[in-house]
Amino acid sequence: MTAIPSTMRAAVLVEKQQIEMQERPVPRPAADEVLVQVRSVGVCGSDVHYYKAGRIGDFVVEQPLILGHEVSGVIVDVGADVSEERVGERVALEPQRPCRRCRQCKTGQQNLCAQMRFYATPPFDGTFCDYVVAPADFAHPVPDGLTDHAAALLEPFSVGLWACGKANLQPGSRVFITGAGPIGALASLAARSFGADEVVVTDLVESRRERILDFGATAAFDPRDPDFDPESLAADAFIECSGATPAMLSGLSALRGGGVAVLVGLGAEQVALPVQLIMTKELILTGVFRYVDTWPKAIAAAQRPTINLDDLVTAEYQLEDTEAALNSDSDPHSMKSIVVVSQA
Amino acid sequence: MTAIPSTMRAAVLVEKQQIEMQERPVPRPAADEVLVQVRSVGVCGSDVHYYKAGRIGDFVVEQPLILGHEVSGVIVDVGADVSEERVGERVALEPQRPCRRCRQCKTGQQNLCAQMRFYATPPFDGTFCDYVVAPADFAHPVPDGLTDHAAALLEPFSVGLWACGKANLQPGSRVFITGAGPIGALASLAARSFGADEVVVTDLVESRRERILDFGATAAFDPRDPDFDPESLAADAFIECSGATPAMLSGLSALRGGGVAVLVGLGAEQVALPVQLIMTKELILTGVFRYVDTWPKAIAAAQRPTINLDDLVTAEYQLEDTEAALNSDSDPHSMKSIVVVSQA
Amino acid sequence: MTAIPSTMRAAVLVEKQQIEMQERPVPRPAADEVLVQVRSVGVCGSDVHYYKAGRIGDFVVEQPLILGHEVSGVIVDVGADVSEERVGERVALEPQRPCRRCRQCKTGQQNLCAQMRFYATPPFDGTFCDYVVAPADFAHPVPDGLTDHAAALLEPFSVGLWACGKANLQPGSRVFITGAGPIGALASLAARSFGADEVVVTDLVESRRERILDFGATAAFDPRDPDFDPESLAADAFIECSGATPAMLSGLSALRGGGVAVLVGLGAEQVALPVQLIMTKELILTGVFRYVDTWPKAIAAAQRPTINLDDLVTAEYQLEDTEAALNSDSDPHSMKSIVVVSQA
Amino acid sequence: MTAIPSTMRAAVLVEKQQIEMQERPVPRPAADEVLVQVRSVGVCGSDVHYYKAGRIGDFVVEQPLILGHEVSGVIVDVGADVSEERVGERVALEPQRPCRRCRQCKTGQQNLCAQMRFYATPPFDGTFCDYVVAPADFAHPVPDGLTDHAAALLEPFSVGLWACGKANLQPGSRVFITGAGPIGALASLAARSFGADEVVVTDLVESRRERILDFGATAAFDPRDPDFDPESLAADAFIECSGATPAMLSGLSALRGGGVAVLVGLGAEQVALPVQLIMTKELILTGVFRYVDTWPKAIAAAQRPTINLDDLVTAEYQLEDTEAALNSDSDPHSMKSIVVVSQA
Repeated sequence: MTAIPSTMRAAVLVEKQQIEMQERPVPRPAADEVLVQVRSVGVCGSDVHYYKAGRIGDFVVEQPLILGHEVSGVIVDVGADVSEERVGERVALEPQRPCRRCRQCKTGQQNLCAQMRFYATPPFDGTFCDYVVAPADFAHPVPDGLTDHAAALLEPFSVGLWACGKANLQPGSRVFITGAGPIGALASLAARSFGADEVVVTDLVESRRERILDFGATAAFDPRDPDFDPESLAADAFIECSGATPAMLSGLSALRGGGVAVLVGLGAEQVALPVQLIMTKELILTGVFRYVDTWPKAIAAAQRPTINLDDLVTAEYQLEDTEAALNSDSDPHSMKSIVVVSQA
Repeated sequence: MTAIPSTMRAAVLVEKQQIEMQERPVPRPAADEVLVQVRSVGVCGSDVHYYKAGRIGDFVVEQPLILGHEVSGVIVDVGADVSEERVGERVALEPQRPCRRCRQCKTGQQNLCAQMRFYATPPFDGTFCDYVVAPADFAHPVPDGLTDHAAALLEPFSVGLWACGKANLQPGSRVFITGAGPIGALASLAARSFGADEVVVTDLVESRRERILDFGATAAFDPRDPDFDPESLAADAFIECSGATPAMLSGLSALRGGGVAVLVGLGAEQVALPVQLIMTKELILTGVFRYVDTWPKAIAAAQRPTINLDDLVTAEYQLEDTEAALNSDSDPHSMKSIVVVSQA
Repeated sequence: MTAIPSTMRAAVLVEKQQIEMQERPVPRPAADEVLVQVRSVGVCGSDVHYYKAGRIGDFVVEQPLILGHEVSGVIVDVGADVSEERVGERVALEPQRPCRRCRQCKTGQQNLCAQMRFYATPPFDGTFCDYVVAPADFAHPVPDGLTDHAAALLEPFSVGLWACGKANLQPGSRVFITGAGPIGALASLAARSFGADEVVVTDLVESRRERILDFGATAAFDPRDPDFDPESLAADAFIECSGATPAMLSGLSALRGGGVAVLVGLGAEQVALPVQLIMTKELILTGVFRYVDTWPKAIAAAQRPTINLDDLVTAEYQLEDTEAALNSDSDPHSMKSIVVVSQA
Repeated sequence: MTAIPSTMRAAVLVEKQQIEMQERPVPRPAADEVLVQVRSVGVCGSDVHYYKAGRIGDFVVEQPLILGHEVSGVIVDVGADVSEERVGERVALEPQRPCRRCRQCKTGQQNLCAQMRFYATPPFDGTFCDYVVAPADFAHPVPDGLTDHAAALLEPFSVGLWACGKANLQPGSRVFITGAGPIGALASLAARSFGADEVVVTDLVESRRERILDFGATAAFDPRDPDFDPESLAADAFIECSGATPAMLSGLSALRGGGVAVLVGLGAEQVALPVQLIMTKELILTGVFRYVDTWPKAIAAAQRPTINLDDLVTAEYQLEDTEAALNSDSDPHSMKSIVVVSQA
């Protein structure tokens, strides 16, 4: 095993729209932590958002910040309370670190912990760097069948699974998804993982509509197509993955009485919603924020022959090219860019 | 027992804002129905809405309509399949008549049945008249401890119970209710029935704020009071009973992470809602439309010493004065007007 | 279309272990019913039980009874309230007929209706005959992709889906199934339909252990194998499909804390269960009795490329050979015998 | 404030049926802990069980053990990470200490944590002593309205609330409770707290049947009374608080279809249960083991005018008389004995 250096490379957001490579000290694992040499890091829309706008809602970047939170790597050191046998283990990291003590943490809602520290959410650094620490229980062993890239993508796949878990999907469920980008594609795979037999997707971009049919969708439409009538769907669930206001409205109209709408895509802060429709159909509207205990499920599902997370990757970048990776998102043909920090 | 006449009185909405007393044939019970001599009928905001505006959303009054759907009475005749022993029984009627055959009806969501026929929802006549028919299983026997008025008010109380059932209330729950009118008062009683230990209510009208403390509320505030900060509540549930848009927004901000908002009050068709807040706190927003199997619960709860539905009644009217009853609603000191069709 | 005759053939259980072919009048559909010419009827363990023992628990065969309740066919006539366009439709019948009026029926538990009439449950005749009537909403249209045999097998598949629905299966779930007969095989397929990624099955018969690997199981063991330790499974759910007492005990020991055990296989009336284990692990033990709204789910799932219900059929019999079909069950290599009443 | 001594008194179970007063070092709070001067400790059936039998199931007393886990006190010192302002706070202690890291802890089932350390569960000492440490988040502030005794009794009340939470109680629910001892009484209060309107209890002892009517029960019967027929109850929920096998059987027979049975009372390891009844009525059988996040609910409910936990106390003992307190349980007129370790 290579010795652990004292400093490392880090791609740091120094101000809005400016990433700078810096030398940073390698962190030391606390007693219950592991030190992980980073392998693959996926670029997420929220990374791009912080890079371009310097904030997401109330979370404001006020000091230099390392972005990146979809991450796989290899354990290279462990804290005092962690078994040394874990050194060498290939892992996917859950980017969250809840307080474990508040009522939310105690009742299965640790994702809503008010003391949450989360990679790449100001002021906590993320993973576009050589080494990161993580609580040992949030470093999940990755089976041989999954690549480093796929292991990093367990994070956005977790978002899709968490969203589908809220939607009570079952065999026979009909799901409507708006947005065929990476979130929509992973939500579609997740919906099929839960047994949904019909997954109808809309997107404005033709290439995305075509591609999502490989990610579990059973039909894809242009929302401007006059022949496509969302109201006729009577869907059991609606998963919004575009952040677009018209998509949100179309999705609510697509639901059957008692159907569930789950907001995943980040869009406007406020949207004029049809509250009388929500009432007369007793729709259930909710959203997702992080996840709870989804990695074991994601790892199991990602090994199915029908699921190949690597297919989502449309570009690879070196750590020094993190800024280019963050800019790649503006191409509608791009699905998921990966920053390759190190390799086996 | 008095013989059943062939015709009866009916207060009919003949056009917008015009009620006319008419003579109508007494209906005959079908095989699975009972014929009920009406006693007390509560005036509901939806009756007033139809009276004043001629419509509620997509439901339009296009022909003369008998309003009224909060109703108690006495069974005076039964259909072929109903036990004759029920004649003479004092009953509270569930105003709904679902198809019993669709998937919604089969899966415990009969309130969302697309074939629903509902008293006083066009084109189905309601209960401001001497006699009505109802399916035998929707005519619930009323115990001696409940008055005819209270029996009629089991309907709006059912709305409150149904709303609270969606809010997962438990001992220790903190509930925020906006609107201290009759719906808010019954929602407050319902919340206490479910074990909520803290019920905070807002209303613009001082007399309503004072009165709701007798209906289970533990605190009542003027929403314009600068000392009242809904965000500090961290409520487990929010029950909107005012129909006012600012109330809806204040209620969403009052919820803890994972809290549930239930819309009960009828307001604007569309409201600009804080969708990012819904996402980052994983709030659950839903509404109520009718109810399922709430009468047995309402009857049990209404007999508690802490609950007195009669206290809600602020005025009584004769059937001939139904129009005055419908207009009484505009007085903010009015809570619930009752049309007394007949008496014991 | 062939004219409907006035009489038909029926295989009647005249006394314990004696089936007699009789001529019976063809039933007439009531207003909300359809008349169905029977195609395929699966032989169920309960049919065999009534045939061999004359009773199942409190249900006793006290007069001649037509057995059979797993049934497909073609609509040949309709009642007054049913669209004539349904004549000619190929259908799978839900064998149940609840009252639709009791509290269980209203709250999504129609399977527990105390007034239930069910094919082949005394004193109600079943489907080993040429024609049967069914409520129109319980006659589900069958897509072309499903054979008549598969359509009949939607009934036992429904049992598996209903059981899995109670077990809260999700992607990543580990399920333990005891019994690899037809019920176990369909429960295994159902578990995979719900997204379970690990399905471990036990059976004493080697050929059944081998075959169930084609029905979604990921591993199959001889329960007597000393290397197989159910306690190490920490399963999320246990589905008992053998009726054997040792299987029930082994399954409870296989569950993780909070795991769910669902009893499907019919066995002893009373079993000594480890109640302290149920308490200290907060296990949830329940069972299934019929199903609610499972046909649409079963039809959707049965069309997946990974599911082929026909593979379960190990023998076909003519209606006149119903008694032989009922006896075929004693061969452990038999999975599902079908009585072919008519064909396309 | 009095200085904290270095040693303290402790009532130690040195061997089966032998309690010895010992001098023990006062524990020091770890960084996230508080040091609590003990006030009141309730005697629980499990304490008595360990005292008399030296074991409960797999938990065996193999070294000297301090019993006691129903406990209130005052914070006298805090660890480095806890606010000093908490010194002087009167608290009720949750006796559990889960690992906070396993999947059970993350998903709202910390009570089932395999690494749980629990007061008075071997090998972890309990609270029949002057001082104990507890994690700061498990030391719940007690409002002035609750006495020290009541604060200690929040623990068994939590058991009742946890049991009722599993039973889905609502307004109108009918609950059957077997056993009118302290557990039954607290389960009865808890059921009423959740809104149950009918609570029927059985017990062999007349004085207990009389007394439980003061703890929320609406009716109490001798189970040997030939006029009492549990099957006619059609209860929504059954809460077993006696540990007696006949009670368990009678309770299962008392449930309506789909009803829930919750085992609370400790009885035989194995019980012959009517599994066919569980299946044909789709009963749900489960049990309770500890609790999750119940103190806030218990504190809120215990302040209601209808609930007075102090009424449960039938005897007080000094710490030196702990053994007498443990023996007091054999008197059927005893409800709850309290060991008074210190007083305000």
